[in-house]
Amino acid sequence: MEPTKRTRLSPDERRAQLIDLGVHMLTERPLEQISVDDIADRAGVSRGLLFHYFGSKHDYHVAIVRHTSADMLARTAPNLDLEPIEILRDVMASYIDYVSENRDTYVSLLRGTASGDPAMREVFEQTRAEMARRVVDQLPTLGIDPTPRIALSVRGWIAFVEEATITWLRDPEITRDDLVELLVTALPAVALSSQMAAALLGT
Amino acid sequence: MEPTKRTRLSPDERRAQLIDLGVHMLTERPLEQISVDDIADRAGVSRGLLFHYFGSKHDYHVAIVRHTSADMLARTAPNLDLEPIEILRDVMASYIDYVSENRDTYVSLLRGTASGDPAMREVFEQTRAEMARRVVDQLPTLGIDPTPRIALSVRGWIAFVEEATITWLRDPEITRDDLVELLVTALPAVALSSQMAAALLGT
Repeated sequence: MEPTKRTRLSPDERRAQLIDLGVHMLTERPLEQISVDDIADRAGVSRGLLFHYFGSKHDYHVAIVRHTSADMLARTAPNLDLEPIEILRDVMASYIDYVSENRDTYVSLLRGTASGDPAMREVFEQTRAEMARRVVDQLPTLGIDPTPRIALSVRGWIAFVEEATITWLRDPEITRDDLVELLVTALPAVALSSQMAAALLGT
Repeated sequence: MEPTKRTRLSPDERRAQLIDLGVHMLTERPLEQISVDDIADRAGVSRGLLFHYFGSKHDYHVAIVRHTSADMLARTAPNLDLEPIEILRDVMASYIDYVSENRDTYVSLLRGTASGDPAMREVFEQTRAEMARRVVDQLPTLGIDPTPRIALSVRGWIAFVEEATITWLRDPEITRDDLVELLVTALPAVALSSQMAAALLGT
């Protein structure tokens, strides 16, 4: 990419440009190898200006990750015009397609060095919490009461989805459609089994 | 703990002692705060001797984590004299009890800084793979054929177990017995749902 020197941008535009450059660079290399100098060069700005916007290299990296997570959530927003099970299938299909397109980024963020950083972990946790919230919000329309036990199952299911997807991205032994179906059917399976368990235990 | 000076130990005993001291210290503080100086002091040996056994502080930390993982696997070994569903219930109960006793260690290892380190990640991955293998090995006795789809479900289920357990350790909104039941019933639920999905898709 050519350095874009002497461009006049508003502060918001400049900030967005710097994040976009980082998101783009993240497709080529892991986060920890994105240097402030490279980004400043590509943007045609000084290191000092970059630090004016982001405070530190670490803050800049967190901003990139936050943007990437928001992007994923936007791409997988539920289409509430569909039937409940179709909403879920549509969300899972969008999710698989999104992470397939951004495979290296996704795997390196969630399973690389970034996964041990407290600020990054917080972004990932908020993203998972939002995915779980979307599911839990749908449960009453399915006649399912979101008890603590079911909320815990949904949280576990988010981890199930993430792990099965990362395993599949590394070694796609089943088709994309089979994976979508596996993720979709697992949710009512764990939610209903936790209801069955509640019935068995009389709680 | 008093320093144990001037003790004569064989190389294997010394190595085991140094790891035990680290495992013990891990109950008091996160891994990254375990210093070689503190351990050498407590063992009554020089830093040099510790580096003779472990090469580097990082190698020493990995040895502690490897020991902890092996300990967890030993504590949760399946009792093959039981019926299949009872084997699973027994394993899950041992697992919950083990991580409850080692709560801070478990949460900080799997969700703290260590989780981003490649060598630590490899130990955790091997541990998860062993837990998954134990489950997959039992499937034929249940009349379930371990297809790639089911293997992927089992892998996802391990992540489900880990995430639900860590969430529960932080905020135990349900009882220990309810959690065991939730984890146990989720496994056939996801394995059977993946078989149902296979039937629906005709694969």
